[in-house]
Amino acid sequence: MANILQYLIPQDKKFFPLLEKASGNLLTISKNLVEMVHSNSPEKRKELIREIERLEHVGDALTHEIFSELSANFITPFDREDIHSLVTSLDDIVDYIHGSAKRIELYKVTEMTTAIIKISELILQGSEELHNAVCGLRNIKKNGRIKEACVKINSIENHADDIFDMTIAQLFEEEKDAVKIIKYKEILSALETATDKCEDAANAIESIVIKYS
Amino acid sequence: MANILQYLIPQDKKFFPLLEKASGNLLTISKNLVEMVHSNSPEKRKELIREIERLEHVGDALTHEIFSELSANFITPFDREDIHSLVTSLDDIVDYIHGSAKRIELYKVTEMTTAIIKISELILQGSEELHNAVCGLRNIKKNGRIKEACVKINSIENHADDIFDMTIAQLFEEEKDAVKIIKYKEILSALETATDKCEDAANAIESIVIKYS
Amino acid sequence: MANILQYLIPQDKKFFPLLEKASGNLLTISKNLVEMVHSNSPEKRKELIREIERLEHVGDALTHEIFSELSANFITPFDREDIHSLVTSLDDIVDYIHGSAKRIELYKVTEMTTAIIKISELILQGSEELHNAVCGLRNIKKNGRIKEACVKINSIENHADDIFDMTIAQLFEEEKDAVKIIKYKEILSALETATDKCEDAANAIESIVIKYS
Repeated sequence: MANILQYLIPQDKKFFPLLEKASGNLLTISKNLVEMVHSNSPEKRKELIREIERLEHVGDALTHEIFSELSANFITPFDREDIHSLVTSLDDIVDYIHGSAKRIELYKVTEMTTAIIKISELILQGSEELHNAVCGLRNIKKNGRIKEACVKINSIENHADDIFDMTIAQLFEEEKDAVKIIKYKEILSALETATDKCEDAANAIESIVIKYS
Repeated sequence: MANILQYLIPQDKKFFPLLEKASGNLLTISKNLVEMVHSNSPEKRKELIREIERLEHVGDALTHEIFSELSANFITPFDREDIHSLVTSLDDIVDYIHGSAKRIELYKVTEMTTAIIKISELILQGSEELHNAVCGLRNIKKNGRIKEACVKINSIENHADDIFDMTIAQLFEEEKDAVKIIKYKEILSALETATDKCEDAANAIESIVIKYS
Repeated sequence: MANILQYLIPQDKKFFPLLEKASGNLLTISKNLVEMVHSNSPEKRKELIREIERLEHVGDALTHEIFSELSANFITPFDREDIHSLVTSLDDIVDYIHGSAKRIELYKVTEMTTAIIKISELILQGSEELHNAVCGLRNIKKNGRIKEACVKINSIENHADDIFDMTIAQLFEEEKDAVKIIKYKEILSALETATDKCEDAANAIESIVIKYS
């Protein structure tokens, strides 16, 4: 089946541009996140959070469009479930980035800790790898770069996980204000979950590569 | 494929009544939830929580029955995955309603805040829309009402999300008792997740509408 | 289709041993967990947590191998989605066991409460039932034992749920230290979620039994 379908891949006019737009949008959001957590100006930060919010809506519309295409088209370039799973994961990453940015604002957290900055940077690295991998799907036979990206994303997730665990342990040990613990735990947990979702996206891409390359 | 299957739809004797029972059960549970959070009598509240518990078991049995039918039948009126996803989401909504009611009781929370009441009412609105949409599936060609319901459910979820965020931010600002913050956060989070699951159910319905109407 | 596939089942050389390895690995991890929460020696506990960590990596590799086989093979002994869902759930159980063990260590929790011990024992019981059920899949026609195991796992999950709810309610009532509440809530929540995932695995097995026996 993979053999028959591969002749159809070059003709596909809809899915590749849409998928690339979705991963490109994620990349832009991640850049905004990293800029935001590095910024010292509350106004600049607020502005970047508004932009993340706007791009989250753009991402929602893209997700919706891909799902409609997926339901309406009998033939898709890859397995329907793999595309579905990839798009859901990209959408989830965006949601968790947006969620953590929103919490930073709502909880009036002004100190961007080392952990917040580091995990945000890992999300950006993961988004770059994902965008490259998604763009690589058009030419899946030369998939060396795609597999490499997936391996990197797995190690990014492990790294974020370790930072999260260490930071929470340290918070419990050093911070006496329970409310502050809850606030930072919520923000870091949303950021860390974003890297989990990067791994889900990488798994979906890997499944496509195994089937179609 | 959609064309062949649509002739089979009128003959389906099992799935529609079961799906309608499941969404009808959700609607009854939501009504009990709203009555409960509006009640000032601890006895009445306890009684309604028992009823929500009982109906959650009824919902579990229905979910189980639909999944068995789904596994045993080769031909289903709609795509197997869409029905699976719809039923899972309906079951999840019920679970989160039950979970929040149970927490209200177990945590001995007696003050039903404005946020608890408002999100409960949004869940009821979402359940009404979902029940109407599910009943509309029998006559999917006249799907104007179904699409409208899905749009409404999306806006209900956004509304609940905003109330949740604002309330948690306010709790962090005004409440000094960390234990109280945790309790209300847990209850509100379960209620808010119920509206997320309404959106998942709406997405499954939308996917069916795109394919079969 | 079930009829044709059943002739292929005995020839399957890959999936059964892999699935049994995955459920066997889960069983070993659960035994380590129970031994750990029963131990009074901090050194012994640390050692067992290291072992759980090591076995979690073994589980990850097995999951990855099964997913690769699933993507590369056109014919699988059971429905692809059911195997996918079963393996994902087994992997999730392992992750949550590992997560709770890690939290016990990181949060420097030294008192293993009755609730921690009891839910850990329920996880072990669930893992035993799951491993038996998975081994029963080779001979699915004699499925009495498999169905029985699934029923037991459901009741194990309910039991764990009740213990969790009661313990959290008690913590809120008796514990004045909010940080301690958060720590225990996090650990118990990870353990309780492990039993939820046992139920997901049982549901996947039940779906296979309905289709192929």
